[in-house]
Amino acid sequence: MTRLTLESINQSVVKAKYAVRGELAVKSETYRAKIRKGDAQDLPFDQVISSNIGNPQQLGQKPITFYRQVLSLLENPRLLDHEDVLVNSLEYKPDVVERARWLLQQVGSVGAYSASAGVPAIKESVANFLERRDGYPADPTSIYLTAGASSAVNILMHIICANQNSGILVPIPQYPLYTALLSVLDATCVPYYLNEQANWGTSLDQIKEAYEKAKSDGVDVRAIVVINPGNPTGASLSAADVRSVLEFAADENLVVLADEVYQANVFVGAFHSFRKVLYDLQKETPGKFDGLELASVHSTSKGLIGECGHRGGYFETIGFDKQVSEQIYKYVSITLCAPVIGQCLVEMMVNPPQPGSPSYELYHEENSAIFNELQRRATALYEAFKDMEGVECGEPQGSMYLFPTIRLPAKAVEAAQKEGRKPDEFYCHRMLDATGVCTVPGSGFGQADGTQHFRVTFLAPGTEWIRIVHEFHGKFMDEFR
Amino acid sequence: MTRLTLESINQSVVKAKYAVRGELAVKSETYRAKIRKGDAQDLPFDQVISSNIGNPQQLGQKPITFYRQVLSLLENPRLLDHEDVLVNSLEYKPDVVERARWLLQQVGSVGAYSASAGVPAIKESVANFLERRDGYPADPTSIYLTAGASSAVNILMHIICANQNSGILVPIPQYPLYTALLSVLDATCVPYYLNEQANWGTSLDQIKEAYEKAKSDGVDVRAIVVINPGNPTGASLSAADVRSVLEFAADENLVVLADEVYQANVFVGAFHSFRKVLYDLQKETPGKFDGLELASVHSTSKGLIGECGHRGGYFETIGFDKQVSEQIYKYVSITLCAPVIGQCLVEMMVNPPQPGSPSYELYHEENSAIFNELQRRATALYEAFKDMEGVECGEPQGSMYLFPTIRLPAKAVEAAQKEGRKPDEFYCHRMLDATGVCTVPGSGFGQADGTQHFRVTFLAPGTEWIRIVHEFHGKFMDEFR
Repeated sequence: MTRLTLESINQSVVKAKYAVRGELAVKSETYRAKIRKGDAQDLPFDQVISSNIGNPQQLGQKPITFYRQVLSLLENPRLLDHEDVLVNSLEYKPDVVERARWLLQQVGSVGAYSASAGVPAIKESVANFLERRDGYPADPTSIYLTAGASSAVNILMHIICANQNSGILVPIPQYPLYTALLSVLDATCVPYYLNEQANWGTSLDQIKEAYEKAKSDGVDVRAIVVINPGNPTGASLSAADVRSVLEFAADENLVVLADEVYQANVFVGAFHSFRKVLYDLQKETPGKFDGLELASVHSTSKGLIGECGHRGGYFETIGFDKQVSEQIYKYVSITLCAPVIGQCLVEMMVNPPQPGSPSYELYHEENSAIFNELQRRATALYEAFKDMEGVECGEPQGSMYLFPTIRLPAKAVEAAQKEGRKPDEFYCHRMLDATGVCTVPGSGFGQADGTQHFRVTFLAPGTEWIRIVHEFHGKFMDEFR
Repeated sequence: MTRLTLESINQSVVKAKYAVRGELAVKSETYRAKIRKGDAQDLPFDQVISSNIGNPQQLGQKPITFYRQVLSLLENPRLLDHEDVLVNSLEYKPDVVERARWLLQQVGSVGAYSASAGVPAIKESVANFLERRDGYPADPTSIYLTAGASSAVNILMHIICANQNSGILVPIPQYPLYTALLSVLDATCVPYYLNEQANWGTSLDQIKEAYEKAKSDGVDVRAIVVINPGNPTGASLSAADVRSVLEFAADENLVVLADEVYQANVFVGAFHSFRKVLYDLQKETPGKFDGLELASVHSTSKGLIGECGHRGGYFETIGFDKQVSEQIYKYVSITLCAPVIGQCLVEMMVNPPQPGSPSYELYHEENSAIFNELQRRATALYEAFKDMEGVECGEPQGSMYLFPTIRLPAKAVEAAQKEGRKPDEFYCHRMLDATGVCTVPGSGFGQADGTQHFRVTFLAPGTEWIRIVHEFHGKFMDEFR
């Protein structure tokens, strides 16, 4: 017998769930492989559409030229010896060359390890961005560059969770990174429900109820996670929601972990950063909010940049104890540093071409096209959902997802049970099998008892796939009504 | 008071030690910053030499042209529309263009998430490399592409360690990643001493002694780590040493974790992969070795490629239970995927230009120059150590380090105690303060009681710094003799 078995390995890992890349995603990959091999005569579709994960460039979103031109120069700095060729024959603008030179000066080589928490000059760029965005200065030494937001959250959770009794308030539904990491760390998830009736906003009542219950169970609740704009919900929180979470956190002395990776994906209203609202509150109510600890997370994977594969990201801490920060630094040192190319991409994301600079026009055009296209598809998908029997969905507000409710007929629930599946899982499998469109069942994110949802990205090009989903749904309902 | 304090956060993190980027490294960075600001009149040196970490490109090693040219095209695929310009004006060879096109076909965009365990075609390239290297085929589905070897080891340790009682045999001295991760996982380190007298080879007696002692203490010893070529020791293990470890592991049903990131840095004899020796043993002694579980780790950070900042790496598992492999897959999914550019670099590392291909000549020339330069400097450093009072060092064999013994005078030990430092730490601080050369004290890696060492890379260009270290040592000994 092998030394390592399912029973003998780390059970905290075994218990962890991560549906975004779970059974459905694996099945969709086997379909994709069949199609690639030309062996898909038995499939009722000729392409797989991975709407299970926010991966824009996998679905054909074109990278933004400025970023990639600079990165190409960082990878091959010898190109900088041919500036005339770059500019005259290859459409590189002078500000591309200039940015590449500046970044190379800061990092030396993108093939060298950087400082553990990231290249100092890039952390300064992030600090400048935060100041411009929020109107309050940031301290570069409180910024940590990471391999995407997942790594950032992983680091923060490793610091915050001390033992099984350490609890973290996590929204339900949530991006399953949070519950998966809590599982791996063998700490306690304290779920609080979002308010679907209020377009998935936070409900202070729900948060308080969850908190009080956990406290009375003896859980040492230490932090609250908020994902804004929401994943999987797509909700864009109002300033009032953000304020109420911060007030609650201040009252109960909780660390706030703000996942703000979709901050550039807001269709309705404005993005209200936890950081800005916190500093506003500190000004308004001197004393009360001074000690509040906030960690906020951002990434190059989402927004309009959509560079998931580059694994760029950062987190900023506010109000953290110096000794705790030293431990964060040591912890990130153990795995040396975030990918340096990803760090450079973070720099460009927070410091893009400005009006008047040679690359601005194209940059702006590409950016706007991506934004408009996302909004257009979100709306088309939303309109299709409105038209689908038993499906209810709020208006698209932000992020890259819609998260509709589905009311499945009793016969479908029965059929699901026969297959040993949850009803929403059953529905998503049927959709994948019939259309090639891969989604994630609501149960992968958590949902209120008795409700069913699924998460779908609106990243896939065109709207033909939306029509196909619509058609599938009609047939599904006919079959099980 | 803040919610998170040194006392309340994860004590497993607090207890972790990672000297490679510890106090000395931090101090060296403050020196570097002073010099950059022109504020270093009080320092007796005008540059900081980071010999504390194997970071070749930070010390001026030039990247290999083929790799970087391909990466530049992956970052900006639009350059491929100008193949004539690339080839005629920018020194790109046709095989560079061809490789870039092939990689783009496999990954789609380097800005897209790949499959969780890496791009399938790149895993196939790794499998082909392993087969060429060892003469035994490899299964691509048992290969996982990671963000450098540190991430690979992190993943494997997270799977293997189930609780506090799970023990892993770790060589002493060792690269402190292992003890740090065991600390973070709150599992048990079972240290076994390497044999300094036999040029830091493994000693089966030492391994058995450590194992038996741990077993009698009730530790559930599950795995043995071997670093070959050695870090910090620089040792290159003989085939006999590798065999004896595998035999012991088979006898005791232990998983073998082979850290082989320095496999291309061997000056004396040949590199014997655990994989090849295992398959040889399976052939020679049918039955005994069939169930042995081996995980081996490689990286783009070391060798002659030295691309640390790109965070490329992989691990391969042999003999792992299918259900355990599924858990590894799920675990790596949680943080989505390794940087895709780093994955592409792995592909090129395992599949470099071959004789006869247009890029081969330059590739070969650059590679050889790096190898020869490393060997030349290793020898120069070794010669200097031979000439230094109280310093003893084995002949350079491999990796990027020398790890000499130093016998410090009693007065120096006393002075160290007064400063609350270990003697080797005291020595390394003095060296940094006097010369700007940053090294790591032996205590950061573990060493036999009463012995003192330090680890120094031989990556810094030139040999003038070696002369300066030599001179410092003489003065130090004069001061404390």
